[in-house]
Amino acid sequence: MHSFPQSFRDELSELMRWRRDVRRFRTDPVEQAVLDRCLASFACAPSVGLSEPWRLVQLTSPEARAKALANYQDANADALKGYSGDQATRYATLKLSGMAEAPIQFAIYCDEATDKGAGLGAATMPEARRYSVVGAIMQFWLTARAEGLGVGWVSVLDPARLNADLDVPPDWHLVAYLCVGWPEATSDTPELETLGWEARAAALPLETR
Amino acid sequence: MHSFPQSFRDELSELMRWRRDVRRFRTDPVEQAVLDRCLASFACAPSVGLSEPWRLVQLTSPEARAKALANYQDANADALKGYSGDQATRYATLKLSGMAEAPIQFAIYCDEATDKGAGLGAATMPEARRYSVVGAIMQFWLTARAEGLGVGWVSVLDPARLNADLDVPPDWHLVAYLCVGWPEATSDTPELETLGWEARAAALPLETR
Repeated sequence: MHSFPQSFRDELSELMRWRRDVRRFRTDPVEQAVLDRCLASFACAPSVGLSEPWRLVQLTSPEARAKALANYQDANADALKGYSGDQATRYATLKLSGMAEAPIQFAIYCDEATDKGAGLGAATMPEARRYSVVGAIMQFWLTARAEGLGVGWVSVLDPARLNADLDVPPDWHLVAYLCVGWPEATSDTPELETLGWEARAAALPLETR
Repeated sequence: MHSFPQSFRDELSELMRWRRDVRRFRTDPVEQAVLDRCLASFACAPSVGLSEPWRLVQLTSPEARAKALANYQDANADALKGYSGDQATRYATLKLSGMAEAPIQFAIYCDEATDKGAGLGAATMPEARRYSVVGAIMQFWLTARAEGLGVGWVSVLDPARLNADLDVPPDWHLVAYLCVGWPEATSDTPELETLGWEARAAALPLETR
């Protein structure tokens, strides 16, 4: 039996309140020991059938990073075309990734073909494997924030192009592209709210049956 | 600037180590105030474009719960047919849901049609909306464990049948079915490992490019 005191629960709530999707990073390096402590949180993440389907690709070469950055830039230019008027102007001013600056970058995949777990829990909802990867990323994100590190999740990417550029196995499905580094600033308010794109909801949408 | 001390980081790591997918619940009720503190963690979860696409349906009526339980039982019987020999014997002895006992149960959806966030970040990877719901569930799960509550994620369900039984809007996509309650026991080892179904990996799969 392992229980947690009120003081910890309060601080956990503060951690979640001060976790941000970070797009503005300092370029100074992150010590490997700090990164390793954050990555250790993958090992205790929940996964359907204990399948642990997460596969990480760290982009360390200038070539791989340049291809990923160009992918983002093209996808972001395409996304801009979907807006018009004031909304297009506002979209164009947003900074949606720190890929040009973040010292640490990962493409995170789900191995759809893993034998691990023998398919338990994934017959009717095979997407549970991808969700397992997301749960692990969330643990990494919170652990990183507790270390003072910023994490930014970039979804403005063409997955097929990234997979080809990184030459990953065909059964790997891209779940996330993460930027990691020391943030320029900390805040308890999402940048999209500060910049007027969208506000947080007042209440949780909850119905009963 | 909000920073977190080493003592908190150590305890956060312990929280993740002692979080379990719980399938064995006591039937005594959970105070609403405790549940509300856990649900509050949704409000500070990350979401693509600040779309906050999570929609919760709490199953409180005996009718709704009976339908969900029958759904699980049928899906589990079908899943058993996918195994043979020793593996089938082992699968049949596993307890994969606490739906017959857990006092609190939620079906958690993603609203695929939400206007919130104006589609930002979801053009090339619309699945980022569902992943946002998973991230929020992970925050709920950790917060619940810190309160001593157990959470079990059931994916052995036919989503179309559950959606029809719960009469949810057509644009809502089922992400998870959660059981919540006081656990019969706590452990730092997954039940699937204890019962010999699967073991945790020795190392994180990480490649570089």
